[in-house]
Amino acid sequence: MSTDKTDAKRHHDPQVRGFASDNYAGAHPEVLAALALANGGHQIAYGEDAYTEHLQRVIRSHFGQRAEAFPVFNGTGANVVALQAVTDRWGAVISADTAHIHVDECGAPERVGGLKLLTVPTEDGKLTPELIDRQAYGWDDEHRAMPQVVSIAQNTELGTVYTPDEIRALCEHAHDRGMWVHLDGARLANAAASLDVPMRAFTNAAGVDIVSLGGTKNGAVFGEAVVVLNPDAVRAMKHLRKLSMQLASKMRFVSVQFEALLAKDLWLRNARHANTMAQRLAAGVREIDGVEILHPVQANAVFARLPHDVSERLQKRYRFYFWDEAAGDVRWMCSFDTTEEDVDGFLKALREELGR
Amino acid sequence: MSTDKTDAKRHHDPQVRGFASDNYAGAHPEVLAALALANGGHQIAYGEDAYTEHLQRVIRSHFGQRAEAFPVFNGTGANVVALQAVTDRWGAVISADTAHIHVDECGAPERVGGLKLLTVPTEDGKLTPELIDRQAYGWDDEHRAMPQVVSIAQNTELGTVYTPDEIRALCEHAHDRGMWVHLDGARLANAAASLDVPMRAFTNAAGVDIVSLGGTKNGAVFGEAVVVLNPDAVRAMKHLRKLSMQLASKMRFVSVQFEALLAKDLWLRNARHANTMAQRLAAGVREIDGVEILHPVQANAVFARLPHDVSERLQKRYRFYFWDEAAGDVRWMCSFDTTEEDVDGFLKALREELGR
Amino acid sequence: MSTDKTDAKRHHDPQVRGFASDNYAGAHPEVLAALALANGGHQIAYGEDAYTEHLQRVIRSHFGQRAEAFPVFNGTGANVVALQAVTDRWGAVISADTAHIHVDECGAPERVGGLKLLTVPTEDGKLTPELIDRQAYGWDDEHRAMPQVVSIAQNTELGTVYTPDEIRALCEHAHDRGMWVHLDGARLANAAASLDVPMRAFTNAAGVDIVSLGGTKNGAVFGEAVVVLNPDAVRAMKHLRKLSMQLASKMRFVSVQFEALLAKDLWLRNARHANTMAQRLAAGVREIDGVEILHPVQANAVFARLPHDVSERLQKRYRFYFWDEAAGDVRWMCSFDTTEEDVDGFLKALREELGR
Amino acid sequence: MSTDKTDAKRHHDPQVRGFASDNYAGAHPEVLAALALANGGHQIAYGEDAYTEHLQRVIRSHFGQRAEAFPVFNGTGANVVALQAVTDRWGAVISADTAHIHVDECGAPERVGGLKLLTVPTEDGKLTPELIDRQAYGWDDEHRAMPQVVSIAQNTELGTVYTPDEIRALCEHAHDRGMWVHLDGARLANAAASLDVPMRAFTNAAGVDIVSLGGTKNGAVFGEAVVVLNPDAVRAMKHLRKLSMQLASKMRFVSVQFEALLAKDLWLRNARHANTMAQRLAAGVREIDGVEILHPVQANAVFARLPHDVSERLQKRYRFYFWDEAAGDVRWMCSFDTTEEDVDGFLKALREELGR
Repeated sequence: MSTDKTDAKRHHDPQVRGFASDNYAGAHPEVLAALALANGGHQIAYGEDAYTEHLQRVIRSHFGQRAEAFPVFNGTGANVVALQAVTDRWGAVISADTAHIHVDECGAPERVGGLKLLTVPTEDGKLTPELIDRQAYGWDDEHRAMPQVVSIAQNTELGTVYTPDEIRALCEHAHDRGMWVHLDGARLANAAASLDVPMRAFTNAAGVDIVSLGGTKNGAVFGEAVVVLNPDAVRAMKHLRKLSMQLASKMRFVSVQFEALLAKDLWLRNARHANTMAQRLAAGVREIDGVEILHPVQANAVFARLPHDVSERLQKRYRFYFWDEAAGDVRWMCSFDTTEEDVDGFLKALREELGR
Repeated sequence: MSTDKTDAKRHHDPQVRGFASDNYAGAHPEVLAALALANGGHQIAYGEDAYTEHLQRVIRSHFGQRAEAFPVFNGTGANVVALQAVTDRWGAVISADTAHIHVDECGAPERVGGLKLLTVPTEDGKLTPELIDRQAYGWDDEHRAMPQVVSIAQNTELGTVYTPDEIRALCEHAHDRGMWVHLDGARLANAAASLDVPMRAFTNAAGVDIVSLGGTKNGAVFGEAVVVLNPDAVRAMKHLRKLSMQLASKMRFVSVQFEALLAKDLWLRNARHANTMAQRLAAGVREIDGVEILHPVQANAVFARLPHDVSERLQKRYRFYFWDEAAGDVRWMCSFDTTEEDVDGFLKALREELGR
Repeated sequence: MSTDKTDAKRHHDPQVRGFASDNYAGAHPEVLAALALANGGHQIAYGEDAYTEHLQRVIRSHFGQRAEAFPVFNGTGANVVALQAVTDRWGAVISADTAHIHVDECGAPERVGGLKLLTVPTEDGKLTPELIDRQAYGWDDEHRAMPQVVSIAQNTELGTVYTPDEIRALCEHAHDRGMWVHLDGARLANAAASLDVPMRAFTNAAGVDIVSLGGTKNGAVFGEAVVVLNPDAVRAMKHLRKLSMQLASKMRFVSVQFEALLAKDLWLRNARHANTMAQRLAAGVREIDGVEILHPVQANAVFARLPHDVSERLQKRYRFYFWDEAAGDVRWMCSFDTTEEDVDGFLKALREELGR
Repeated sequence: MSTDKTDAKRHHDPQVRGFASDNYAGAHPEVLAALALANGGHQIAYGEDAYTEHLQRVIRSHFGQRAEAFPVFNGTGANVVALQAVTDRWGAVISADTAHIHVDECGAPERVGGLKLLTVPTEDGKLTPELIDRQAYGWDDEHRAMPQVVSIAQNTELGTVYTPDEIRALCEHAHDRGMWVHLDGARLANAAASLDVPMRAFTNAAGVDIVSLGGTKNGAVFGEAVVVLNPDAVRAMKHLRKLSMQLASKMRFVSVQFEALLAKDLWLRNARHANTMAQRLAAGVREIDGVEILHPVQANAVFARLPHDVSERLQKRYRFYFWDEAAGDVRWMCSFDTTEEDVDGFLKALREELGR
């Protein structure tokens, strides 16, 4: 079934990599190979295929026997399906004010899900029971959107990682107040690699009810999954996924990518590598005067502050983003395909531009 | 970059095919090859990559110099993004009551887009100016959702195909009344193959303003595109795609699939083949007593009426769907990978089950 | 507390009445007197006032001990709050295709509630178990919005009235299929008057779960109520009302109007009078050649067919609406304040215009 | 037409008043008299009546020749209709984080309008150009909801009042960035009374594009109006009002209340009186040790901090609300019907409870 023939042409240089985002990377070759493996013949569309069925076994090996995966297309889709699943029409979501659902999804939670977000400023992207309480009140007050779920990101948008105990405390706090807990795990693998524990240790074992499990940033072509850890918290997941326009017809091609990542250790290899590259980058940066590292480097992101003009010159050599342009804060993100040479070359360039 | 190694396993028999739907098929090998070609290195996420840029040239070669493609994930996503693009908050969509947007999208147009659908019964899935007029009135009446767009499907859900002149007449009629025209082209290629004209002949050249262009059923792994033919009809397409959760981060992998299909003639080869197989199937069926073909077979679907028990026995040998179970109506769909042997084997089985 | 002083001026002739709609009428004087009675002093806003508390007793006297009223502003608001209350995010509503929720609410059910309407053509505005079955299927099919409630109107938009037995059969049919029943009772009083039974006879006693109870057309200044008959069918009604923007701050003024109508027999006096006037009108029309009465005249509406030019001339003398302008169908609606002289004058005018 | 007869009963003591909210008050007797004046006879429903037509003249006398009023039911309705009118599906609203639209409307802006709120913490409820800039960026970034309108409240939820110059500066700042300005004027009259300028001075003359004009808290039974000051900013207002379920059928009764308030000076008499009572209350409080006034008292609200147990005892004698229960902050609100005796009695009670 495989072929090299195609009318498409290559339009890019596969040797060029930057530090802009882990979704600037392509797919891991083993994931592409899985697509070919699943190709050919007919499979029932919309999730009744053998790959999606098998995926459930793989998912349960990671997240326990009650877990069920609902493959979807992208992270925003996963988040909005998951949040709708654990809220009523009158529900609200408590999150950090840096949360992706609040700042990077063009209002999809509000517009698609009709969700109200109740946000809290945080030190480092991490909620605490105390911070939750700044929005967790007024359940009987009809003038207030009813807090029904706490949404956290692991790792956070600031590259920080909750410990399993921190998540356990959040979940207990939320559950005591009648709220579910959603975990946005677009980079769940990086968190597990950072903590050196199985993914279950800080999800189902810590009390999380529903997870957005990232595939794309972990090396997939595309594809995320809503993983229901607590079936008591949800209903009609398939309808929710469909009405949210996140139901893939040829779902076997999403599921087999997750199988390629999760059946053995590709997910971990990819995540560990990205994290290691971030550590290498951070170590190198710490030896350079004039650059300040801003948050604990716990996963695959390095946040730094440096002179604005230096960043602008550096951006002409390597792609990366300003995080807070006024403050001079930037984000450097490592990926599964970042090489030691990429990091060292970037550090060299950074030194050069700082020295001008 | 290519590899055969993967931890995923094959869970299906790639030699088994049925007649349930063209999305039961996998991807065309040339499309898979294109994915590999686009892999490796870093590309800007969310559509600023070289493949999506190049795709615009390909799209313009098919749909004219004003056309612009916005790759999305799936057909429902394409339809709902497109329909939002040409309506206001108070807008309504006129469509056939058999339209996919009305009966097969779990209310996504209503729930995600806030759209009101004004439907009309049709003979064969096709709207006419007269049928449009059954809903096209009351623009100044605030009690009525304002008709702002006519949505047609080419080919229709009943496997019928509008002629370019029929579409031109619909577009003139709609435009005269201040309405735009959307075309759901999940199987646009099959229609072009059926009519033996370029896709432009019954889209931009006929006055259509915006198209949902199907990739998945034409041989892609996944991926559709909203193709804006009339830029005056839309605004803020990128925002609409994002808030509708249809923005792929690694968009190069959607765009390169369309390039593989559209750069030369893969789209047409695939569509012609599927249509030819449907003609072969229809021809064979016509020679069999006890089965009635229901609609003109103009693309890759054959609708038939036969005894219910025969269908049930036949379904144990080949997958296909009842279209109207009470009436005994079934749909047999051919795909780009349907073989002559598949068709002949199916006809044999049909004869056998009818003969019992 | 009462006064005659105001800076407002009278801008209309209180002696002029037509047959356009029962909401062209003003308020019954006893309702206005109730507003004055409830005025003065402070009452807790948003429904915690003494009038709303008392209203519950009045409502229970009509609809049984489990009934609870949630006053709202208008009929569309009542319908959309009620339908949201008995559906999930993935739910659909089965209704007649003539239903107010489908044709007269500018898509509010879809846009505000995210509801999908599954409509059925009817003979006379009335659903039957058989008609319901045309849309009641596919609960497990995620591609289809899930039918969760049947919505009927009593009396219907065509002025027809279900018998208690007819409603009981509908409710049993719906309940057997796991669906709730909503009754749009914008003119509930007229139906009770027509049937000469208490309102409970064809609502809670017949199995209806939730009602939109009309006040405005029964003689109120404004105000409707969602009446929950089956508390097991709903949750968080107060939140739903608030988020649907139907929560009155000075709710005492809605509640006291319902008290004025429902405490004794004002609701019935008003409805009976309007119905009687419609019968007088229908009787007169039947004696006139050239006018055909279209539906059974069972409440306060008369539908008729007559020459278009006659209608146009008549409209210059009395306000009324075309129902189907192409067919020459018109609607004549009587109100609580329609007088015998109004009817007789109208009949005289009709005869004159027909005779020209 | 007037009558004293009604089957409703009085359930409250019209001599009891508190300091909980200005919507605990009833209606001004002159407003009730206006209702009676507008009663009787038939008027076209849904806004084509003579009272709504006349209201436009009254509105233009206050807000200039381009102004147009769209009467609605309540404040949340007015806000959500107005904000939808000046945003697209992809739009966002910049507001103070204390704004009513954010904290007191159960998510109606998000759920009904699909609006994303981008909020900013403020000192005293008032936005400034600098504060706006904390959210006014990223118009081309599809990941971000597009800021299209700045929404301010006059007076603010903290009882503070913008000067006309402050609003002018905000409007220029917003307009320079392509954003419209909405003003939530639930207590617009109190602001005008406080500033001692016409309402136009800080609305259309200052550049505001659209206003939610409060009637209820100014002495109406119910009723607010969306007042469009800049017709270029909006389209299809009537459709928006209807689909937002804010279209009153007997609209004459909303419009005539506004006429009663605005034709001469009832709006100002009511507002001035409430403000004066708040000043009397604040002056009295300032003479009492142990109570701190929290914000400038510029309209009809007094915010104060006092021992929690004192507040609780005082609440048994007079109704009022905690604003921040943890901090011991309370809000005392005066109304058009608050008397000097009410204030003096309350001050006496406050002194007594503090002295215990």
